[in-house]
Amino acid sequence: MTAAATDHPENPLLSSPFDRIAILGTGLLGASVGLAARRAGVVHVAGFDADATAARLALERGAITRVADSVEAAVVETELAVVAVPVPVATGILRQLAEQSRWQGLVTDVCSTKQSVVAAAETFGLRSRFCGAHPMAGSANNGPAAAVATLFDGSVCYTFPPAGDTGRLVEAFWQSLGCRVQGDLTPAAHDTLVGRVSHLPHAVASALVLTVGDSLSSGGPGLRDTTRVAGGDPNLWTGILLDNAEAVTASLTDLTERLTALREALEAGDREAIHAFLAEASRRRRDWQP
Amino acid sequence: MTAAATDHPENPLLSSPFDRIAILGTGLLGASVGLAARRAGVVHVAGFDADATAARLALERGAITRVADSVEAAVVETELAVVAVPVPVATGILRQLAEQSRWQGLVTDVCSTKQSVVAAAETFGLRSRFCGAHPMAGSANNGPAAAVATLFDGSVCYTFPPAGDTGRLVEAFWQSLGCRVQGDLTPAAHDTLVGRVSHLPHAVASALVLTVGDSLSSGGPGLRDTTRVAGGDPNLWTGILLDNAEAVTASLTDLTERLTALREALEAGDREAIHAFLAEASRRRRDWQP
Repeated sequence: MTAAATDHPENPLLSSPFDRIAILGTGLLGASVGLAARRAGVVHVAGFDADATAARLALERGAITRVADSVEAAVVETELAVVAVPVPVATGILRQLAEQSRWQGLVTDVCSTKQSVVAAAETFGLRSRFCGAHPMAGSANNGPAAAVATLFDGSVCYTFPPAGDTGRLVEAFWQSLGCRVQGDLTPAAHDTLVGRVSHLPHAVASALVLTVGDSLSSGGPGLRDTTRVAGGDPNLWTGILLDNAEAVTASLTDLTERLTALREALEAGDREAIHAFLAEASRRRRDWQP
Repeated sequence: MTAAATDHPENPLLSSPFDRIAILGTGLLGASVGLAARRAGVVHVAGFDADATAARLALERGAITRVADSVEAAVVETELAVVAVPVPVATGILRQLAEQSRWQGLVTDVCSTKQSVVAAAETFGLRSRFCGAHPMAGSANNGPAAAVATLFDGSVCYTFPPAGDTGRLVEAFWQSLGCRVQGDLTPAAHDTLVGRVSHLPHAVASALVLTVGDSLSSGGPGLRDTTRVAGGDPNLWTGILLDNAEAVTASLTDLTERLTALREALEAGDREAIHAFLAEASRRRRDWQP
């Protein structure tokens, strides 16, 4: 609390409800959780990463206070495990945590799709100790080198609490990292929403880069902004799109139908239809003040 | 020259080859041409706009030194007329200029498509006095209130010089406004290029806004950047897309084919194809340093 007050005198932060946590996966998000948790007064942060270099760098950055050489070793004597790996890896880690009969801490995660992760926690008998989370924060850069303590400040964190006290504690933890917690969506509603507002833009920006091709360097600020997210990590995004395939394909169908209608209006020289299309988009975009 | 050196001591600007110019259309681009021209030493800037309020505001902002009440009145005793209106209006103004037998000044424009404007100059017998231009600069805001003297600094300006001296003088004028002049594209090649790097992103961002619909407010920085350009003026953009319909429909077809291929790969769970798609886009986007 003293450290937090010193770091952010103008904005007194909440303190973490946990003193000892484990971070499983010390990339950009995991290491940023560590830095923000330290800022919120967490004393002990154990870190494990399959890539030992990433864990060592997280230690050097002060994001973790101890490097563990396995999931099992990381969670010993911690109250909360934060699973901060891509979806396909996360379900495997949830299974390992469920098999740790001597450890009974709480579990949260950072995955950007939630149906499969919440279902896995259920399947492995972890549901009462698992409060899934999706903090809507990121960076153009990856890895613990890009981690910052302020990554989550002011960003929405969707949470998926089980019945009972687990949700209250884990949500207080995310709030102590700077998040605004929103816990009223079902995993399915969440995945449909992020399929539209996050995964679809990524797919579209990537397709746009490929269409523009070698002319990319002739683009200006408009093309730069429209395609920025396409620079993201292809491994991470392959997992996200596949895990949320149903919602993403539905929104891709919707989008391509709109683009086809616009193309047909252009071919027909239908000024009125083109103007209506652009005017509605312009009005909605100007009404949104992000 | 003294004024220019004072305003930008670290970057001595070129001075304008013209002392007296007319700006036909005093919106964002026209008024910014006026401010930048004044910075480059132009003494007299006559301005005409069909919207008298816009012309008066341009005068108050110092973008023009005199308000004219017609195209004819604006160009009297000027050496250069800058046509700064949307494409469909521009061709009408070129005709009016051609009909001014007592005025023999040079003509340039700012239209973002070039085939129709250059062809109109040819048709009206203006070609030897007309050097078309497309400065790649803009703003999220419209009108003379948003104009700035620095709008063109460092931006590419595509030019379309006729045979003879006209091109040399008009290109020197655009350079004096801060542009990097590029005069080696044909109008057709230019329109194909901007169809891809500018008009396609606008169409895509607009379609994305409409697809996301009421969920827009749940979006984060990624969606904000991907859709930013969709907030542009629908009147202006309807004209641009229609005038460049052939290039835009071709690139829309290319883009929708890529989105359809991605959707099919997602439906088939084809991890390899999805990864190849995202990895190629990510590599190209990261290689581009705008």
